[in-house]
Amino acid sequence: LNELDVIRKLSSNLPDAPEEVIVGIGDDCAVIRLGDRDWVAAADMLVSGHHFEMAWSTPEDVGYKAVAVNVSDVAAMGATPRFILVSGGADDSETTLRCMEGVMQACAEFDVFPLGGDTTRAAALTIDVAILGELTAPPVLRSGARPGDLLAVTGELGASAAGLLALQNDHREPERLIQKHLRPEPRTAAGRIAARLRVSAMLDLSDGLATDAKRICEASGVGCRVELEKLPISEDTREICARFDRDAKELAATGGEDYELLISAPEDVVTALSEGLEFPLTVIGSVIEGEGAIFLRNGNPVQNLSGWDHFS
Amino acid sequence: LNELDVIRKLSSNLPDAPEEVIVGIGDDCAVIRLGDRDWVAAADMLVSGHHFEMAWSTPEDVGYKAVAVNVSDVAAMGATPRFILVSGGADDSETTLRCMEGVMQACAEFDVFPLGGDTTRAAALTIDVAILGELTAPPVLRSGARPGDLLAVTGELGASAAGLLALQNDHREPERLIQKHLRPEPRTAAGRIAARLRVSAMLDLSDGLATDAKRICEASGVGCRVELEKLPISEDTREICARFDRDAKELAATGGEDYELLISAPEDVVTALSEGLEFPLTVIGSVIEGEGAIFLRNGNPVQNLSGWDHFS
Repeated sequence: LNELDVIRKLSSNLPDAPEEVIVGIGDDCAVIRLGDRDWVAAADMLVSGHHFEMAWSTPEDVGYKAVAVNVSDVAAMGATPRFILVSGGADDSETTLRCMEGVMQACAEFDVFPLGGDTTRAAALTIDVAILGELTAPPVLRSGARPGDLLAVTGELGASAAGLLALQNDHREPERLIQKHLRPEPRTAAGRIAARLRVSAMLDLSDGLATDAKRICEASGVGCRVELEKLPISEDTREICARFDRDAKELAATGGEDYELLISAPEDVVTALSEGLEFPLTVIGSVIEGEGAIFLRNGNPVQNLSGWDHFS
Repeated sequence: LNELDVIRKLSSNLPDAPEEVIVGIGDDCAVIRLGDRDWVAAADMLVSGHHFEMAWSTPEDVGYKAVAVNVSDVAAMGATPRFILVSGGADDSETTLRCMEGVMQACAEFDVFPLGGDTTRAAALTIDVAILGELTAPPVLRSGARPGDLLAVTGELGASAAGLLALQNDHREPERLIQKHLRPEPRTAAGRIAARLRVSAMLDLSDGLATDAKRICEASGVGCRVELEKLPISEDTREICARFDRDAKELAATGGEDYELLISAPEDVVTALSEGLEFPLTVIGSVIEGEGAIFLRNGNPVQNLSGWDHFS
């Protein structure tokens, strides 16, 4: 059993959905119609079990990140983050409080309001955030990708993984990459614009492009081709990879925790979206008939690229 | 710092509430107006860190209980539980899956629909549930108790603590009490009726009557008197207490995890509520001017009764 298996087993066993449920389990968020509006809902839990993690990141970082990754799920539906519930705890109340202060910093940063939650005691610093976001355009699902669409990503790939690689090698720089890892920047404005432009599919890259591209393919009943040469990789990410003898393209394709948006849309929509953003949108491939995500290096398929699985 | 301190420090630092927020942090649930309805929202996390706990309770029990305690928070507002988000994990995916199956059992039992969530890896089985409930009457807050009101509790007190006491002494019976501990029964129907009858204050007894009665007093700016002789204690709870040399009344006043409702209301409302229920509602004291919860044994104040604090 891996994480996907757990989710699949549970999803196969669901009761009938109440009429308010527009989209159930399986996308970045569920969608429910409450009154005259559609809302998205999701939850993500972080467990900082390892002592080395706690040497890199402060409890405030962990609290901040727990909110940011949920905001990213909301962004991936094209919605605006509004409310959170937050539960968590550590072995001592001081660490718990510091973590919650990071939560409050993120609430201020992303303009979300904390409705409540729970504090408890846990051997490892643990935090779960549940989020409600508001839709003003139809939600963008994972399932709408169509053959002929382009695949594009916001921002850059591999920066968070490069920051982690630096930390794992006892480096405290480059600061920019380490911050990308510790305090990710969800793409809420881009998500909203993408929804208004009716992109065909979208998700946020949390588990690595290789895993997440497959998710769009499975949900949409299509395949895709991604060219590793096209992945947007920053100079500092390349330098870290060179220093620690890692392939930068592979890191960018598998690293995880980018929290950039992966978007499928016809070419004219991609062009319009690109013009609406203040940061790069990069076409990395296309949607095709078939199934599975094919990654190409110099035109040749690359095998065994895969992202993060909590239970592997 | 104890758990209340953590909550107080965070509550003192909140941003301005959006206009949808009717009730913020500090009650059993927050209340938000979405469209034409009012909704309640809360979250509660369970961490089963101790090996002895896992010898008593199955992963399914833990998942079930995590939903039940959240349903109880919704009941304490007078609302109907509708949707949950659930995050959690254990050291292996099999345990995670079994826990999630307990979640699904509880969803069926309490008629709530799982919208999604997250699975992760955690050394100790950890589960957090966030819940949305729907209001069809004004929410009942902790802050409405008035001098002259009666204090009443649904059902019985101390049963869960007695079940725990049995387990701690390696007993596997009485089964009824152990089930009260492992799979609590939230009082949703009673909560809804209480809300329709406009009781003045209500909360669910999670941390023990001694602690929770104080919470109503603090929120309402009143005091209360509780007579230990009046606490509804079942025969099997008394027997367990006698066997293990514990004072049954004290256990009932401090034990925690009863998930009964503590209700404040004028006498005529208490009478009407009692007639509407299919199980006992017991008057245990009254609301008075002043502050603090005074517990009386044979007319004399009892000192040092206190409930559960995660960080004490």
